[in-house]
Amino acid sequence: MPSINSAYASLSSSYLFSEIARRVRAFQHANPEKEIISLGIGDVSQPLVPAVIEALHKAADEMGHSETFRGYGPEQGYAFLRDAILEHDFRSRGIALDADEIFISDGAKSDVGNFQEMFGTDAVIALTDPVYPVYVDSNAMSGRCGEFKDGRWSRIIYLPCTAENGFEPALPEHRPDVIYLCSPNNPTGTVLSRTALERWVAYARENDAFLLFDAAYECFVSDPDQPRSIFEIEGADEVAVEFRSLSKTAGFTGMRCAYTVVPKKLKARADDGTMLSLHDMWLRRQSTKYNGCPYIVQRAAEAVFSPAGQAQIAHVLNIYRGNARNMLRGLDLMGLAAYGGIHSPYVWLKTPGGMTSWDFFDLLLQNAAVVCTPGAGFGASGEGYVRMTAFNSPENTLKALARLKSLL
Amino acid sequence: MPSINSAYASLSSSYLFSEIARRVRAFQHANPEKEIISLGIGDVSQPLVPAVIEALHKAADEMGHSETFRGYGPEQGYAFLRDAILEHDFRSRGIALDADEIFISDGAKSDVGNFQEMFGTDAVIALTDPVYPVYVDSNAMSGRCGEFKDGRWSRIIYLPCTAENGFEPALPEHRPDVIYLCSPNNPTGTVLSRTALERWVAYARENDAFLLFDAAYECFVSDPDQPRSIFEIEGADEVAVEFRSLSKTAGFTGMRCAYTVVPKKLKARADDGTMLSLHDMWLRRQSTKYNGCPYIVQRAAEAVFSPAGQAQIAHVLNIYRGNARNMLRGLDLMGLAAYGGIHSPYVWLKTPGGMTSWDFFDLLLQNAAVVCTPGAGFGASGEGYVRMTAFNSPENTLKALARLKSLL
Repeated sequence: MPSINSAYASLSSSYLFSEIARRVRAFQHANPEKEIISLGIGDVSQPLVPAVIEALHKAADEMGHSETFRGYGPEQGYAFLRDAILEHDFRSRGIALDADEIFISDGAKSDVGNFQEMFGTDAVIALTDPVYPVYVDSNAMSGRCGEFKDGRWSRIIYLPCTAENGFEPALPEHRPDVIYLCSPNNPTGTVLSRTALERWVAYARENDAFLLFDAAYECFVSDPDQPRSIFEIEGADEVAVEFRSLSKTAGFTGMRCAYTVVPKKLKARADDGTMLSLHDMWLRRQSTKYNGCPYIVQRAAEAVFSPAGQAQIAHVLNIYRGNARNMLRGLDLMGLAAYGGIHSPYVWLKTPGGMTSWDFFDLLLQNAAVVCTPGAGFGASGEGYVRMTAFNSPENTLKALARLKSLL
Repeated sequence: MPSINSAYASLSSSYLFSEIARRVRAFQHANPEKEIISLGIGDVSQPLVPAVIEALHKAADEMGHSETFRGYGPEQGYAFLRDAILEHDFRSRGIALDADEIFISDGAKSDVGNFQEMFGTDAVIALTDPVYPVYVDSNAMSGRCGEFKDGRWSRIIYLPCTAENGFEPALPEHRPDVIYLCSPNNPTGTVLSRTALERWVAYARENDAFLLFDAAYECFVSDPDQPRSIFEIEGADEVAVEFRSLSKTAGFTGMRCAYTVVPKKLKARADDGTMLSLHDMWLRRQSTKYNGCPYIVQRAAEAVFSPAGQAQIAHVLNIYRGNARNMLRGLDLMGLAAYGGIHSPYVWLKTPGGMTSWDFFDLLLQNAAVVCTPGAGFGASGEGYVRMTAFNSPENTLKALARLKSLL
């Protein structure tokens, strides 16, 4: 028999969202007349804004003529896009970075999933719990998680986030090599305060650990004093990597464009004593196993950062913010405990009557044709919660709330 | 210090094509008036064909309206594209596959680079030499190659392909777990005959090995009896994975769309005795660490397989085929030994006077402003050769030949 990656034998057979999609398909198949409303997977519903569509048409025309056709692009992405991001996301908030510390890619899921390759197979990983499954599964695929027993991996340090601790993870008792943080958080919808972020950066610096900071939802932060980037924290550029995405910011879930910041100051020593730069390693990884985001998509992304693009996406984001507010208010009126939803498109709902999260998922699907995401799918501490997203239309969001109300 | 992936310490700091790009930039900077002609990296020069541009505009418009907007797509790619590929590439040649054995992605480079994750870290890899560097480097990054010494990795089985053996690799003396084959070959431009492919499939079946078959250049096969897919060989669907790309077929280098066939019959046993399916593992890998190719790109790819698209790309491919013929003829008239170029866009040139490949690269760049790819960059057996591509315009190809002639 050929040698195979045995780590896959310990993985559950399907990715959380694939399993949800399977149950939804089965329900729709059995009930073809039912109109399903999804507050499940975090997919947007509003179309791309006009500035983006215009840029797409222009770029498509360029691809049709010899003089303006573009083949392989620069490995880290085109300068026009990296410069726009640098200016808009970072310089405007007083963050000093070089444009070549920004890597354009096809998605934060790809980058978050692949970034663990930079670490040793013996690296100890700390994760908040509940957590975006990609952090766990990608490490498990690399054989870094030990054994899976009773819903937990033996070599992972879990940092529970529940209503009891205000969804703020405690510092680990044992030193990890790598810490994943996500704020605004997927799935709980809560944010880490500036003080909490400072504590994490200080901890990583003192303990020689790397922070992988997932800021995919930063566009939902509504308080100007709340940090949107980990690099707003002094000294973070010596310990942190930041993942960003246009999926939620500009409706790019079907367009695929994201970016990752890997500062040049991040370094660690290899077994043979060589000092390795994480920036150079990631560049080597990406130029070997990736070939860039399509030119037309990068031009569309550039348009997001134009004044017209910014005004247009602000309008769309306000629709989603309104949905989140309506959900919080509606659930509160039903006497349910709900969290998040203020600096985030996600509302984290405590299931009524102590139901398990998959039971509540099935109840909602079967009796209200509403899809949510079972909290247990995000980790043991997500049991007893479900995640609901604000990405559907205002009408569907209100309709889903009414259907839920009728069940109680 | 945090635990880091020490395998990166043994990798040369840059990917072959990044190093070439660096030298070309330095030359252009020092000689801003010189018009450089690149026969180096395999990037196309002809624009996208009208059927593709039209599909792009249509899909861009769909993305701008609520009713037709598309968010996250199906993980393996849209059915419209997988069905078109199945019909055009496989069924038309008598190959029976299911549409869900086809995985759409952002590039064959990504798929080829990532596929090694399916194997154990102790898997033994066999490679032809010279070889596309991604096969080697991606395995080295996973710590599967042993030590790098005198231009060779200690755990890799190298299968030399030189003029002496007609560029046809001998079967390995020791059993590997995984064998990479590329036909039409990058970089030598030669093809493996049906008999040779049958020998490899039989070897893989008898020795319980997997074949990773890179068919990225199949569109250049000009003999109807020459297999275009490994699945034309009986029994290959129990041992082989095939990588295909639209980069060269339809000028998609800047568009990013490829596809990989992983038959459901491929299986191997994990350490704990579980039988794992490579198809299910790859689906799990892709749905965890990847999020699909953009909708608009998949619609553009679909248009390649339409009757209009096929007629239009045939015209473009004939331009490149003409370039390859002109190169072979021109080099022959100069008394140089050149191989490949018949079923392939690549010509593999023996350097004159026993020059090293990097010396010849520098000579050509500095004195003729022509870029080729040094054979040594593809492996030890590539020393003494350079690769030239047929992807430039007919005018530039002839001009580059004239410049080369004036050097001799």
